[in-house]
Amino acid sequence: MTAAPTSLAALAALDDLLADAERLDAASPLAHVRDRFELPEGLVYLDGNSLGALPKAVPDAVADVVRRQWGSQLIASWNDEDWWGAQVRVGDQVGLLVGAAAGQTVVTDSTSVNLFKTVVGAARLRPGRRVVLIDPDSFPTDLYVTDAAARLADLDVRRVHPRDAVAAIAEVGDDLALASYSQVDYRTGEQWDLVSITEAAHAVGALACWDLCHSAGAMEVGLDEGGADLAVGCGYKYLNGGPGAPAFLYVAERHLADFDQPLSGWHGHARPFEMGGTFEPAPGITRGRVGTPPLVSLLALEAALTAFEGLTPAAVREQSLSVTALFISALDAAGVLGDDLTLATPREPERRGSQVSLRHPQAFAVVQALIARGVVGDFRESDIVRLGFAPLYVTHVDAVTAARHLVEVLDGREFERDEFTRRGAVT
Amino acid sequence: MTAAPTSLAALAALDDLLADAERLDAASPLAHVRDRFELPEGLVYLDGNSLGALPKAVPDAVADVVRRQWGSQLIASWNDEDWWGAQVRVGDQVGLLVGAAAGQTVVTDSTSVNLFKTVVGAARLRPGRRVVLIDPDSFPTDLYVTDAAARLADLDVRRVHPRDAVAAIAEVGDDLALASYSQVDYRTGEQWDLVSITEAAHAVGALACWDLCHSAGAMEVGLDEGGADLAVGCGYKYLNGGPGAPAFLYVAERHLADFDQPLSGWHGHARPFEMGGTFEPAPGITRGRVGTPPLVSLLALEAALTAFEGLTPAAVREQSLSVTALFISALDAAGVLGDDLTLATPREPERRGSQVSLRHPQAFAVVQALIARGVVGDFRESDIVRLGFAPLYVTHVDAVTAARHLVEVLDGREFERDEFTRRGAVT
Repeated sequence: MTAAPTSLAALAALDDLLADAERLDAASPLAHVRDRFELPEGLVYLDGNSLGALPKAVPDAVADVVRRQWGSQLIASWNDEDWWGAQVRVGDQVGLLVGAAAGQTVVTDSTSVNLFKTVVGAARLRPGRRVVLIDPDSFPTDLYVTDAAARLADLDVRRVHPRDAVAAIAEVGDDLALASYSQVDYRTGEQWDLVSITEAAHAVGALACWDLCHSAGAMEVGLDEGGADLAVGCGYKYLNGGPGAPAFLYVAERHLADFDQPLSGWHGHARPFEMGGTFEPAPGITRGRVGTPPLVSLLALEAALTAFEGLTPAAVREQSLSVTALFISALDAAGVLGDDLTLATPREPERRGSQVSLRHPQAFAVVQALIARGVVGDFRESDIVRLGFAPLYVTHVDAVTAARHLVEVLDGREFERDEFTRRGAVT
Repeated sequence: MTAAPTSLAALAALDDLLADAERLDAASPLAHVRDRFELPEGLVYLDGNSLGALPKAVPDAVADVVRRQWGSQLIASWNDEDWWGAQVRVGDQVGLLVGAAAGQTVVTDSTSVNLFKTVVGAARLRPGRRVVLIDPDSFPTDLYVTDAAARLADLDVRRVHPRDAVAAIAEVGDDLALASYSQVDYRTGEQWDLVSITEAAHAVGALACWDLCHSAGAMEVGLDEGGADLAVGCGYKYLNGGPGAPAFLYVAERHLADFDQPLSGWHGHARPFEMGGTFEPAPGITRGRVGTPPLVSLLALEAALTAFEGLTPAAVREQSLSVTALFISALDAAGVLGDDLTLATPREPERRGSQVSLRHPQAFAVVQALIARGVVGDFRESDIVRLGFAPLYVTHVDAVTAARHLVEVLDGREFERDEFTRRGAVT
């Protein structure tokens, strides 16, 4: 298949950008950090916003948990390895990445389960108020769980897009219990302003909860500084904790004493080993815990977080913006943005997270064609090619390489091939 | 320290029993199964009802999950390794051990979270009925979570001991939604009759839920045969899934279509990848899922369950009763049962699970003294020495050895030593 004439110029432009990319990578303060990850040779992995890559520290740490802590020390590891304290200990490490001072973040359960805690918990912190606002474009589990919590707690969920949230919050006024938003849209990668929505909620006496699944580990979040009340997020995307790594829950210090979450399991009890018959919440964020946590997965996350050693969220964000900007520049230089392929992600750095999403009528097949070329992104309904640039291991060269493959897929109309249009298993 | 004269006869009697134990171990159909576990040389591990020992199949399986499935295959493993189906696939394996036909058991979340689903789910299956009965001596999380669910679902929880449950069920009658009991008491090891309590619940149109934490993997449970409606249990005790291994949830086939559980996360959706805005439960037990499961821990459990290959629950139960009976015989032979040391566990085989619990005024220190001698059990408030006999790896010789150490601890009054009476960290 011969490339169209336009693409010859495009490929030349990309060659120039590749040289720039090499210089940027060499100069990057995060240049050494990619070495902290195991990545298959030659793969351009742009799906770290779905499953983060494997940090090199993890396999040995997990083997130690399994063979020594569990196999040899057995039950004694609850004390000797402080398994008992792991959820809050790892929570504090996550807190460092999302701007939360110690003692407000706990690693526990899944994001879905934690959302249930925040919705019911928020309603109890604001008794008498019945309205919860949420983005209709939220990741679906946020919608499902919020509806489920509202059904039990007799709340009224209203779906309001984040661009209209500040106005809607003011309009609902003193019936608003909670504004529950994602900082970064999982499909478009658009970033919403944590501070203005949080301030609007506070102005009417309500709380704000932030879903950080697509921001924790990829950008500055600033929970404390932004005045967030509650937050949740997952451990397996930009935190690289492994498939289904436990999620986290943040409750601002000022709410902790009154945070009354609905899943009162024994690990959230003040004195669990007294085995008393009445629940009494533990002081602090420990009350966010429920049952015995999956320690192998939890301690894998702890080891994974060492990949962030020495990095500030600001430095991570700088790298993320530099790489995503270069990718967008490459698409511009190649002239592929237009009728069929459009940016779903805002160009303005302050309005995007760490992914670049593109709309294309054959988005599914475009993603499959890219995967076949060793550029792994994912498809999201209905027309989104989603490319996540995990700043710890996706390089500038990766960005230009991915752009080049995309140009070739489009020029060669590879997305029309049967092998790529066929929808099989889930991705 | 010289042993008291009585104990010389006691020790001689134990020597005789040790010879019996060796013969019983040699003849046991499970003799080869202990080799499927890593156990520290010389340790008598009687705490498998708190944390099961490490099956030898686990370390390599976990390393494969981490290095190959996650590290090399990355996101593709959701399809290629069927991570997506793992919760139901492993659930079916657990089902084999608790008498549940395929398609009714899912491995998900913690026992506490699953209890929340069963209480609210049961109330929705029996609308208009408000009463839930539960054992006041339940493991505390069962009490806490049931209270928490009742608070949200406007239920009336009544704590009625299982010995009085059948009468209480009849008395509550058609206001009863759910009888929620543990098959085996976590402290005393007493087994309660699943069939009679379930039948009594059905007689008034109510449901029965069984907590199998202390029975799954150690005895016959017979969920389907016994007519159980719902069940939960943990993966880290007799199932040997590792610290905090995910728990399981069972919903009888006849209730699945209407089982409306309150934690409706995206993994429980009928078509999660359509990313629709309205929750629609998946067919079958898949609707018991919530968020993304901790796959490293979940797949460790899957590998651990291979230790049960070729064993029927009946064979496991036979071994369990043989070993626990020998332990009780050894205590009898040694003449140590009396004023200070008493059996908390019933002697009748059909009335006990797989543990033998003893009451002693200095139970805490007795446990510490045993641990110092390499016999690991645990203490439970207020006066229980709890010794779990995991039938897959605790031998008859272990049972007699443990009895001998206990006799020596008591004869030597080791429980009075400062080093053993001092209460430090949790155990």
